[in-house]
Amino acid sequence: MDKKISGQLQQLYACYSSDTFVTQSVDKIALGFEGIKDDRHAGMTRKSDARTPWYTRGTDIKNTRQLSLVSTEELETIAQKMEVESVKAEWLGANMLVSGVSDFTLLPIGSRLFFDNGAVIVIEGENLPCINPAKVIAAYYQNKDLEKRFAKAAKEKRGVVAWIEKEGMVHAPSQFKIMLPRQRLYPGLMGK
Amino acid sequence: MDKKISGQLQQLYACYSSDTFVTQSVDKIALGFEGIKDDRHAGMTRKSDARTPWYTRGTDIKNTRQLSLVSTEELETIAQKMEVESVKAEWLGANMLVSGVSDFTLLPIGSRLFFDNGAVIVIEGENLPCINPAKVIAAYYQNKDLEKRFAKAAKEKRGVVAWIEKEGMVHAPSQFKIMLPRQRLYPGLMGK
Repeated sequence: MDKKISGQLQQLYACYSSDTFVTQSVDKIALGFEGIKDDRHAGMTRKSDARTPWYTRGTDIKNTRQLSLVSTEELETIAQKMEVESVKAEWLGANMLVSGVSDFTLLPIGSRLFFDNGAVIVIEGENLPCINPAKVIAAYYQNKDLEKRFAKAAKEKRGVVAWIEKEGMVHAPSQFKIMLPRQRLYPGLMGK
Repeated sequence: MDKKISGQLQQLYACYSSDTFVTQSVDKIALGFEGIKDDRHAGMTRKSDARTPWYTRGTDIKNTRQLSLVSTEELETIAQKMEVESVKAEWLGANMLVSGVSDFTLLPIGSRLFFDNGAVIVIEGENLPCINPAKVIAAYYQNKDLEKRFAKAAKEKRGVVAWIEKEGMVHAPSQFKIMLPRQRLYPGLMGK
């Protein structure tokens, strides 16, 4: 825990439906090794999809996309770039809305978030923008043009996905701390 | 798979004992989501230990140390630095001995290794040198002084630990490919 970054957990969300990825605000969530119990993305494994193009679609793989996190600051930037009043965390299927962490989406793979009550999650990586949230935003504002603008506006701002390392209850609002992994660029590719 | 690195899988090992971490050579291994079936380090979860000092020892956490990998080139360097004839993979409790990957221990967190028969593992990170392999080496060469030399000689050369993302049989000798994650340093700490 050399380098500690603190952040605020503003709001929690879950999706208990198989019909939509849009999440709904909840007071607290129980994080288990499988994710949020009964949530759409819960599971020790999942089927590979467009996010893992190196696998045949539908292959069973370890589930490292149990949670989706976004930040208030980055959502505001996306909204400004799209020229809309706001972009809501639930439209992006987020489970956690945080604030106070600069460049939140660029947190390194392997960063750990320590929540107040003991739960710990590990960042799997950036959540690349895709068309589904864009459709939700366009539908809300009844402006089809917004669909095309989302991916560009959300580049490196769309938050991260994470998996649960240590179980626990999480409530919001609350605080969390971030432990960054040791960072260095791989020397094995230098000069190649 | 922008940047492909190839490597050779030279030898496989497993440890089916609870009395020692020293591994034994095997022809093939079945990688499941829990790791190597019946191996000492198999499991979807594990108890936290000295490797995870940020948790109370014995806490249930997700198991991302299912496999230990070392490289022939780095083992040779360790042996040279320790001034011994050789340091064997099994003394370090390794499950895979690879060759042909420069700076193997420094592969980034999140690097994926694709094996011939379809199994895929993800690098959790560097395996920090500890005292147990040092004791095995010192005992083999009947030279107690070697215990102290191991950690320094093995710095950034002791290999990596990994978890299974996609199941499959793995045999050796065989080939594998490495997909590096997107690499960049976290800008959020600049100037802090």
